[in-house]
Amino acid sequence: MRFLRLALAQINSIVGDINGNSRKIIDHVKRAVGHKADIVVFPELAVTGYPPEDLLLKPRFIADNLAAIEDIGRHTNGITAIVGFVDSHKNKGIYNAAAVISEGRIVDVYHKIFLPNYGVFDEFRYFLAAKRFPVYSLNGTKFGINICEDIWYGDGPARIQSLAGAEVVININASPYESGKPEKRERILAERSVENDVIIAYLNAVGGQDELVFDGFSMIVTQSGRILARGKQFQEDLMIVDLDLEPVRSLRKKRDPAKALKPPKKAGAVEMVWIPAQKKPGRKPLKQMIVEPLMRKEEEYYGAISLGTSDYVRKNDFRSVVIGLSGGIDSSLVAVIAVDAIGRDNVKGLFMPSSYTSRESREDAFQLAENLGIEIIEIPIDEIMEGYLRALEGKFSGMESDITEENLQARIRGNLLMAFSNKFGWLVLTTGNKSEMSVGYATLYGDMAGGFAIIKDVPKTLVYDISMWRNSISEGPVIPERVLWKEPTAELRPDQKDSDTLPPYPVLDPILKSYIEDDMSFEDIVKVGCDPDCTRRVISMIDRSEYKRRQSPPGIKITPRAFGRDRRFPITNRYRSY
Amino acid sequence: MRFLRLALAQINSIVGDINGNSRKIIDHVKRAVGHKADIVVFPELAVTGYPPEDLLLKPRFIADNLAAIEDIGRHTNGITAIVGFVDSHKNKGIYNAAAVISEGRIVDVYHKIFLPNYGVFDEFRYFLAAKRFPVYSLNGTKFGINICEDIWYGDGPARIQSLAGAEVVININASPYESGKPEKRERILAERSVENDVIIAYLNAVGGQDELVFDGFSMIVTQSGRILARGKQFQEDLMIVDLDLEPVRSLRKKRDPAKALKPPKKAGAVEMVWIPAQKKPGRKPLKQMIVEPLMRKEEEYYGAISLGTSDYVRKNDFRSVVIGLSGGIDSSLVAVIAVDAIGRDNVKGLFMPSSYTSRESREDAFQLAENLGIEIIEIPIDEIMEGYLRALEGKFSGMESDITEENLQARIRGNLLMAFSNKFGWLVLTTGNKSEMSVGYATLYGDMAGGFAIIKDVPKTLVYDISMWRNSISEGPVIPERVLWKEPTAELRPDQKDSDTLPPYPVLDPILKSYIEDDMSFEDIVKVGCDPDCTRRVISMIDRSEYKRRQSPPGIKITPRAFGRDRRFPITNRYRSY
Repeated sequence: MRFLRLALAQINSIVGDINGNSRKIIDHVKRAVGHKADIVVFPELAVTGYPPEDLLLKPRFIADNLAAIEDIGRHTNGITAIVGFVDSHKNKGIYNAAAVISEGRIVDVYHKIFLPNYGVFDEFRYFLAAKRFPVYSLNGTKFGINICEDIWYGDGPARIQSLAGAEVVININASPYESGKPEKRERILAERSVENDVIIAYLNAVGGQDELVFDGFSMIVTQSGRILARGKQFQEDLMIVDLDLEPVRSLRKKRDPAKALKPPKKAGAVEMVWIPAQKKPGRKPLKQMIVEPLMRKEEEYYGAISLGTSDYVRKNDFRSVVIGLSGGIDSSLVAVIAVDAIGRDNVKGLFMPSSYTSRESREDAFQLAENLGIEIIEIPIDEIMEGYLRALEGKFSGMESDITEENLQARIRGNLLMAFSNKFGWLVLTTGNKSEMSVGYATLYGDMAGGFAIIKDVPKTLVYDISMWRNSISEGPVIPERVLWKEPTAELRPDQKDSDTLPPYPVLDPILKSYIEDDMSFEDIVKVGCDPDCTRRVISMIDRSEYKRRQSPPGIKITPRAFGRDRRFPITNRYRSY
Repeated sequence: MRFLRLALAQINSIVGDINGNSRKIIDHVKRAVGHKADIVVFPELAVTGYPPEDLLLKPRFIADNLAAIEDIGRHTNGITAIVGFVDSHKNKGIYNAAAVISEGRIVDVYHKIFLPNYGVFDEFRYFLAAKRFPVYSLNGTKFGINICEDIWYGDGPARIQSLAGAEVVININASPYESGKPEKRERILAERSVENDVIIAYLNAVGGQDELVFDGFSMIVTQSGRILARGKQFQEDLMIVDLDLEPVRSLRKKRDPAKALKPPKKAGAVEMVWIPAQKKPGRKPLKQMIVEPLMRKEEEYYGAISLGTSDYVRKNDFRSVVIGLSGGIDSSLVAVIAVDAIGRDNVKGLFMPSSYTSRESREDAFQLAENLGIEIIEIPIDEIMEGYLRALEGKFSGMESDITEENLQARIRGNLLMAFSNKFGWLVLTTGNKSEMSVGYATLYGDMAGGFAIIKDVPKTLVYDISMWRNSISEGPVIPERVLWKEPTAELRPDQKDSDTLPPYPVLDPILKSYIEDDMSFEDIVKVGCDPDCTRRVISMIDRSEYKRRQSPPGIKITPRAFGRDRRFPITNRYRSY
């Protein structure tokens, strides 16, 4: 059996940490050599981390990254390495690139052709789009390389490279996780491999970077669209795979010339590049390859949020986090995720009751802390609140108590959390969910105060689903049962319920998805099942809350459209679609 | 004399207000007909306002804008109108476009060719780039139209249209103000007109939109690069100008064929479009055209910030603002601008002293309020602070008083400001300057709490310059003299001075500009005059403050690189350039 051995190094780079990333790359090169791999592959922009954003505008940053790829090159012997970095062309600009390194020398550089500039992506802001289609030859095997978005287009480089003889297409990625993305990638790769009779090696980065989580889940798809191997999701991995090239060749021989694919019109010239041969004496084919399974939805979301949380903490040099525990479902879930992500000793709870806080809330908050084994600190806020009211005496005379006084309580709690953050260096995790963020049911500088909003992209109904799933995989319940069933309340005035202000969450969440993620019109949203008045009120709340979202902490994207870089709305906006 | 009469309608559209913008456009069409103009011109995306950002992803928004341009078309008679809107091509996508309307009918639509995708611009996120170069003929005059960025390129549509016979190029803009931009535009337009022997009519939008201010300052540049007319800066205007076409023709006849410009390689086909002739009987040429002068720098900045402030207030349906007055220079300047922008009755001051507040600060805050004739409300914060300290008793035992306690004071003030905002619907204007925002010398949820940060892009040294200029144009001083000369302090601990933490502002500000606006390396910044330790400390402070800036309120861009949409930095960022 003639085969090509690939090592897919699914690594977790840190944005800007050029030295650290380089060390990690060199270390994985050595491990791949140990596995007698022909080629070791690293993710898109592995050297700089993805996305470096406006660091890319700093000439010094580009220069440092170029020095790093040269250095990696010098450490690459006995193997061919493919490494994502930023290439620079004097006067013209920079490219999102992959270096092809062999025996201490950069043999060639591939430049990305399709630049994403939608959703969270801004690649036209930085990079030039290339039009060159190299095909590489190594030990008699031909392969193509391309980068991320390049593989999404049927008439892109994969087609051109396959027509020029590539038996394998290596596609390197920094592809952020969102719900449904793993399945979508699988579908696209199956299409692309079958239509070109080609094996596709899809390598994805892993790790959290501000709002984004790269989920790894790299995979090999055969010429018949079957998944031959799949790596871990949400963890680093070094996948070693043997690609049998015979089926590709025999399939191509049998190919009906009448049905042969035509090259795309816009194709540039194909260029052949020979990589010096490397012998791997005494190598035996692997017996088995691992296909990590798809997770169930709740587990997948949980994995994304956990990784996003632990990486934000770690990469920003925090050690501990502090969470305001109210006894409600949101703060409970946030605390559980935090404990799973960074360990119970690094998670602190703050319980800040007022006279509106129920006995149940207190019991549930303390029960949760006990279940999790985390420290819980209690600070009552009524006296501070009285201080504010005394200071404001006479200023609001004759006016009813309203949202002002409710917000003051939330802001006292925000201040106390920040005091602990300032004093002990704990990162404040906020507890707001996507439903609240959407309609502005949250207090700016109050419960929105903090460094990272880990469930900001999780709608309330999904908060329940994830919580129940998490409880289901433990021996005893982690989140107290009552928290899952009692009615949600902010407890900022007597007998307050979320449902005083908002439609029930099972009604609200589909409207939010239709409007925010699907850009549906008012009329179409009403058609799918919510009455016009309720829909109008919800849309109006979303529109009017943009100013709050603009000042909210970043959070972890898990849906196809999160708030943040993903959805760019004007605050000043008179458009009314209802 | 054969001439073309142009009406340049320098209007202030509101983003999303399709109906209101349409009414304003139709109203200006009528006024231009009254002036017997041949052509009336409106800014880039006049129908939707600029930039509509992700509203452009909503199919209903595009449809509403298309209905509006049809409606404007029906109201356009006796004149040719050029109106910026969003054109849509089924299946392909949308264009940043200009409709050419004559006698109730859309005769043609121009599509923007060069899409900016740098700085504050994201046009590749939304628009398709076109490659069609129409030239229009009206009453025997040939002219071209193009949009904003199109005119910045020597081998762009202006060249192609001129070579195809256009005597006038009409360039419609939504060009945001920044320091030096008016002079830069003048230079580019002079180049473009002289190299093509063509008159350029440059129309810019006016108005504030979140972080951006469009400054108007539309102008006519003759075939010899001279400014024939210039409109108001920072105000709406309807410029009526007569363009004498004879000099263009005679210049072109004399043109040395050997020096003739060649068409750019990438030019698509030029297309001639005839617009039905319109007679303007009994029309006499204008005697004189107005050239509004360039302002001096401080006045120009002041104009930009005033317009940005009044439009943010007005377009978001606020009436009044509230400002925390500390007796310092920043809050003083913010208050003066606010009074100039929206009137003294709509500006409220909050004076919130602590035991660290000096007698001078109190006198200066009250003197300022008296000079401005604004209401000032006093609320001491010491008792509230004591409430916090009591609540925290024992939690921080054995630990020194530090930034925690300083921030608590700032956050109490933030909460009080927000309480007035919530109770009375006043918009909180924050008072932080660019120097503070850069190094993070500000308290998140404290002095950073508020809706709009009007001097966020003004470095501290410029805060002084603008304040002195503003005082100089008044009878008596507006800002008390002492405020201009006393040493800056946050008054959060005894005898605190900004200079305890920061280098003096005349040293700090040039470093900030070099690093933030010019992307200079550590070594180059040291070379231009700051010692390595000081530079290292400043850069480190800038890098580490990104998380604060991400949660800061939007502010008004006046420099070539502001914080916000203009500078997109990762929070998680291990790059150290020093």
